[in-house]
Amino acid sequence: MEEKPGFQTYYAVIFVSTLKDKHDKSYYHMSEQMVAQAKKQPGFLGFDSARSEIGITVSYWKSLNAIKDWKTQTQHQIAQQLGKEKWYAHYHIRIAKVEREYHFNSL
Amino acid sequence: MEEKPGFQTYYAVIFVSTLKDKHDKSYYHMSEQMVAQAKKQPGFLGFDSARSEIGITVSYWKSLNAIKDWKTQTQHQIAQQLGKEKWYAHYHIRIAKVEREYHFNSL
Repeated sequence: MEEKPGFQTYYAVIFVSTLKDKHDKSYYHMSEQMVAQAKKQPGFLGFDSARSEIGITVSYWKSLNAIKDWKTQTQHQIAQQLGKEKWYAHYHIRIAKVEREYHFNSL
Repeated sequence: MEEKPGFQTYYAVIFVSTLKDKHDKSYYHMSEQMVAQAKKQPGFLGFDSARSEIGITVSYWKSLNAIKDWKTQTQHQIAQQLGKEKWYAHYHIRIAKVEREYHFNSL
């Protein structure tokens, strides 16, 4: 458990979603494509994703501008529209500034 | 998709973890107990949790002080110690200030 000195803040987009149909393969296909696209975006730092009853994807970004650019990226816009029409029963997006972090490794 | 006017910031604790043994029932028992405890803490606003390859739990808090109080709560401290000794292969905790949020409902 350690804290970095001189910590440089960055941003997290916390995306919590419930799918209409958890077995719709087209959703997972789109999801993989969006990860590949996001990795090409300037300011993208990485992401974590898990899904059981709900899905949580947290993506990390250098700045609010990098998030804005990703939000308006063409293929992402198409995916957002399809998401609302087709895949998501509900979602909640939070944009948050990461101020501190810690990690632990058992090894 | 809507944004709240006069948005009141709050905090998110983004907890990303990998378990040594995903089938260890004692972990899930502790996890349920910690949720019950957290709900009693002043300043606790709610949480989202999902686990597949990795686990992500995001808890929401009114202030950094509320997070600090939870971090040092007695039963939570015991769980943290056990977590490091027994359950977690790795974890990463980020504390982030929620600055904006949006939600979508298909209904």
